[in-house]
Amino acid sequence: MTLTFEDFSPGDTFSGGGYEMTEEEVRSFAEAYDPQPFHTDPVFAREESIYGGLIASGWHTAAVTMRLLVDSLLSETASLGARGVDELRFPRPVRPGDVLSIETEVLSVEPETDERGLVRARTETRDGSGELVFSMVGLVMVAREVAQSRSSRDPLGADRLP
Amino acid sequence: MTLTFEDFSPGDTFSGGGYEMTEEEVRSFAEAYDPQPFHTDPVFAREESIYGGLIASGWHTAAVTMRLLVDSLLSETASLGARGVDELRFPRPVRPGDVLSIETEVLSVEPETDERGLVRARTETRDGSGELVFSMVGLVMVAREVAQSRSSRDPLGADRLP
Repeated sequence: MTLTFEDFSPGDTFSGGGYEMTEEEVRSFAEAYDPQPFHTDPVFAREESIYGGLIASGWHTAAVTMRLLVDSLLSETASLGARGVDELRFPRPVRPGDVLSIETEVLSVEPETDERGLVRARTETRDGSGELVFSMVGLVMVAREVAQSRSSRDPLGADRLP
Repeated sequence: MTLTFEDFSPGDTFSGGGYEMTEEEVRSFAEAYDPQPFHTDPVFAREESIYGGLIASGWHTAAVTMRLLVDSLLSETASLGARGVDELRFPRPVRPGDVLSIETEVLSVEPETDERGLVRARTETRDGSGELVFSMVGLVMVAREVAQSRSSRDPLGADRLP
């Protein structure tokens, strides 16, 4: 079943988890997109940085949070993409070995056109000790039921997946 | 020369560019972190999505923007990492073949401790036609000159780079 705009209400929560941040992925993501040495160089990070060891790029943590959101919610939602994201915060560093999980709460829903609405939701990401490491507020466009039922196929393309 | 907190003033601008979004990278980033079919499946994206073709994940565009920021500015700045990012917006889709460039403007600077200050800066990302595809406001912690000069080594680890 695919969730449409009408299926979301303020206060609804969704959760997911189990993503391990390996040192290899922390370094390879950072080498591609955020090559600051406290993300890429374990010796520098330990001996010279304020962090006392390698930490993940905040963009990596955000990307992994998105992956957990897709797996736990958006893969079953008639999502049309995000209009934007607000208030990304990184209260604690993420370190290699941390296993991340997320909890998302719908803050508000707002019809935009006959075809879609905007779902505003806050997502919190925690490490294996339950400490908050990341949070954000996403603005996701979701197809309305009437638009979705006009489509002969699942707009998420689930029937194309293996 | 490494820029410290005292080197930044409201109105300063920095620019960078030349990052091509290949279809291969658009799909591989999305398969890892944002596996929605309008990011991963060219046939679905063309025939079934509202976008009429494959588009990059917004998180991919954000990560590439970060890479351009590191290359053009942060690699020469005593950056201590970001406290957060506000107002990520995706006004137009990014498509395979687009070549992205950025312009960053310092909005405000605020000393936080004897050791560091917070630089608030807006970054705009444009495609090869000059259309705005992404913007955000970053909150970056930067070491103050006095802290930087106490360090015997470049806090960015430049002397460790090849």
